[in-house]
Amino acid sequence: MRHVYFDHANSTPLLPEACAAMLPFLNQEFGNPQSFHRLGETARKAINIAREQVASLIAALPGSIIFTASASESNNLAIKGLVLANRAKGNHIIVSTIEHHSVLEPVKGLRRLGFEFTLLGVDRYGQVDPRELSQAIRPDTILVSIMHANNEIGTIQPLKELIGVCHEKGVLIHSDGTAAVGRIPVNVTELELDAYSFSAQSFYGPKGAGALYLKPKTRILPLIEGGIQEQGRRAGTENVAAIVGMGKAAEICQSRLPAWAEQMQRLAERLYDELPKRVPRLVFNGHPTEHLPGVVSLCVEFVEGEALLLCLDDEGIAAASGSACTARTLKASHVLLAIGLDHALAQSSLLLSLGKDNTSDDVDYFLDRFPPIVERLRQLSPLYARHLKGEDPYAFKTGQGDDDKEN
Amino acid sequence: MRHVYFDHANSTPLLPEACAAMLPFLNQEFGNPQSFHRLGETARKAINIAREQVASLIAALPGSIIFTASASESNNLAIKGLVLANRAKGNHIIVSTIEHHSVLEPVKGLRRLGFEFTLLGVDRYGQVDPRELSQAIRPDTILVSIMHANNEIGTIQPLKELIGVCHEKGVLIHSDGTAAVGRIPVNVTELELDAYSFSAQSFYGPKGAGALYLKPKTRILPLIEGGIQEQGRRAGTENVAAIVGMGKAAEICQSRLPAWAEQMQRLAERLYDELPKRVPRLVFNGHPTEHLPGVVSLCVEFVEGEALLLCLDDEGIAAASGSACTARTLKASHVLLAIGLDHALAQSSLLLSLGKDNTSDDVDYFLDRFPPIVERLRQLSPLYARHLKGEDPYAFKTGQGDDDKEN
Repeated sequence: MRHVYFDHANSTPLLPEACAAMLPFLNQEFGNPQSFHRLGETARKAINIAREQVASLIAALPGSIIFTASASESNNLAIKGLVLANRAKGNHIIVSTIEHHSVLEPVKGLRRLGFEFTLLGVDRYGQVDPRELSQAIRPDTILVSIMHANNEIGTIQPLKELIGVCHEKGVLIHSDGTAAVGRIPVNVTELELDAYSFSAQSFYGPKGAGALYLKPKTRILPLIEGGIQEQGRRAGTENVAAIVGMGKAAEICQSRLPAWAEQMQRLAERLYDELPKRVPRLVFNGHPTEHLPGVVSLCVEFVEGEALLLCLDDEGIAAASGSACTARTLKASHVLLAIGLDHALAQSSLLLSLGKDNTSDDVDYFLDRFPPIVERLRQLSPLYARHLKGEDPYAFKTGQGDDDKEN
Repeated sequence: MRHVYFDHANSTPLLPEACAAMLPFLNQEFGNPQSFHRLGETARKAINIAREQVASLIAALPGSIIFTASASESNNLAIKGLVLANRAKGNHIIVSTIEHHSVLEPVKGLRRLGFEFTLLGVDRYGQVDPRELSQAIRPDTILVSIMHANNEIGTIQPLKELIGVCHEKGVLIHSDGTAAVGRIPVNVTELELDAYSFSAQSFYGPKGAGALYLKPKTRILPLIEGGIQEQGRRAGTENVAAIVGMGKAAEICQSRLPAWAEQMQRLAERLYDELPKRVPRLVFNGHPTEHLPGVVSLCVEFVEGEALLLCLDDEGIAAASGSACTARTLKASHVLLAIGLDHALAQSSLLLSLGKDNTSDDVDYFLDRFPPIVERLRQLSPLYARHLKGEDPYAFKTGQGDDDKEN
C-alpha cells in the first residue's frame, strides 16, 4: 500500500541531517552543558551553535532565544511570564478567538490571579481586524497575543499592522509562530515583535525542542524556575540532542524554504482545483490569498471528520481534522466555529497539511482515493439522504441548535 | 589519556539499549501521538509501554505518571500545581533548606501570590528531623516537599517517618527523587507518597525526559496548559523518542540496580578508605550510613573547587563541585552551608558521583592523579601557607565573614 502523509501541521519527519547531528549527543557527548569539564564544554558549545542557527531562521540575535521543550511551553512561558513580570502596569490581556489552546488556557487561568482578558473575534477568513484590536486595547492592557498564522485553516494574520497598533499604544505583543515557521519566512526583528513562539516540529526538527524569541531587555518571569540555564529563564538540564537537532533543522530550513514552499503550494493548488470537480459540497476554509503554502482546510458536508480520517488511514493516507492537541476530545474546532461554521460543518473538517517530501503522485493518489470514501460515508448519512431527496437536511433538528444550522 | 567520568549526578551516559529503542522514533515513527492515523497510533502505543516501564521502576500505577521534560519541570509542576489546586485549604508550604533550587525557587516565587513558607533546617549530615517537621506544620500548611536523597552530599532522608508525620496531620507530601532513583530502590506506593519527581538522566536514560508521580485522585493544576496530553496535566506534543528511551532505561535499571549499586558502593568505599591516607585535610560530607551508593562528597581544604575541577579535567577526570544547575554561578553551595560548613570550606567541595560503568581502574587512576593536583593547588594558596606555618589560616580575615570561619 502507498503511504501518503498529509499531517505535517501536527508532526513532521525529522531531517536526516538533523538526526545525524543529534546522534553524537545521544551516543557519546552526554555531558551536562553546565558541568566544568570537557564533556560539559562540548555540550555547551553545541548549544551555542544551535542557538545561532535557530536565531538566524527568524532573523533574531542568539541571546534572544530561550530553548523550551515545545511550542506549548513557549506559549505558556510567554503568556504567564510576560503578564506576571508586567502586572504593575496593568492586568488586561487581549487574544484572538482562534489562538491555540496553549495560549487560550493560560490566559483563562490567569483570571484566578485577578487578570482580565478580551477575546478578539475574527472574520470569516480567520483574520483579526487591526481597528478592532485598537479599540479593544485599554489603558490597563499589558499584553496582546495573536498567532502569526493559524494551524487549522492556514490564514496568515496582518501581523505587521497588528504589531503597529500595539506599539502605538505601548502594549507588548506576543505571536504564536508554530504554524508559520517552516512555511513562510519570518523576520521577528523587522516585524518588531516582543515575543514569538515556535518549535522544531514545524520545520522537520525533533520533538521535544521549542523556542521562545524574546526581544532583548524584555522582562519575563520563568515558568520553570530554579536553574541558571537559558539565563535563568528556563531551568532544567538542556535537552542537548534535541536542541542540536533543532539548530541543524533551522539551518537547512532557512536555505531550502523557498523551494519547499513553492512545491507545497503547487501541490495544494492542484487539490484546490481538482477536489471540487470530483466531490460535491466541499467548503474550503481560510483566506484566499493570505494563506500558508501547503495547508488545505476543507469541510466535507454530511461526513463526520473522524470517520473520514479512519477511512483515509485504511488507504494509507495520514491526515487530520484539526489540531492534534485536541483531536481526541472529539469536540468541534473552536477555530472553525470562530470563522462562522456551524457545529455540523465544523465536525466534517479535514486538514491536509502538505510537506516538503510530498509529490504530485501523492496528490494523484489522494484525488483517486478520496471521492469513493466520501461517497461511501455519505451513503451512511441520514442527513445526506434528506439532502438527496431535496429536503433541508437539518430541518428535523429543533430547539437550541436551530439558529446556527443555516449557513 | 585515560578518561574517568565521576559526574553521574549531573549527567549519565545513555544506555545503548535505550538509544536503540529511541532511534525508530527519530527516524521513521514520527507521528504525533494524538493523531488519528497509524503513525499516531504507533507513537501512542510506544508511550503507553514507556509509561508502564517508568511506573514499574518506582512501583506505581501507569496512570499516575506524568511525563515532563526534566526533573526541574517535575518539581515546578509539583510545587505550583499542588499548591494552587489546594489554596482553598491553606497557604503555607514547608521545604527543607537543602532542596534543589527547582523546589526552592517556585516556593519563594509563590510569596508573590500570597503563600508563606517555612525552611526546615537539617543536621550536620543533612537530615531533616521528623519531630521538627511535626512542629513546623501549621493548620494552614498544605504541602511539604523534602527530597528523597540529596544530590550534592548523598544523604538519604528518613522519608518514611517524614511521610508519616505529614499523613498524620493531613498534609500533602512531595519528594524530589532525582538523586535517589537509579541508586536505591524506590517504592512510592509503599512509601505512600503524594508526589515524586525524577528524570531519566538519573538512570542512564536520555535528557529531555522527566516524570512526576502523582498519587491517583490527587488534584493538580498544570504548569503547561492547553492540551489533552498527559490527561490534561501537561500540554505539548509528547517527546516520543525521549519517553521511549526513558521507559527502556527504567526497565533495565529495575533489573540491574542491585548489581550497579553494589559495585558503585564498593568503589566509593575504596575512595573513602584511600583518599584520607593520601591527602591530608579532607572533610567528607553526608550521612555515614544513610547514604546513596557511589556518591562521595568531600571538601579539600585550602583548594578552590573550580580550580580542582579544571586540573582534574586536564587529567581526563570529569567531576563536579555540586549541582550543575548552579555550577556557573560560582556561589558556595546552599546545601554545604546548610550542613554547617563555612564558606571557604564549602567552596572547596568536590563531588565524585560514580556510575555503573566505573571500574577499580578508574578509582586507581583517580587515587594516583588526585594527590599531586591537590598538592600543587595548595602550594598556590596563601591560606595553606599560613596553615603550614602553624598560623590560623583565616585569622587575617576580619569583618562580616569572621563568625563562620571558625569550625
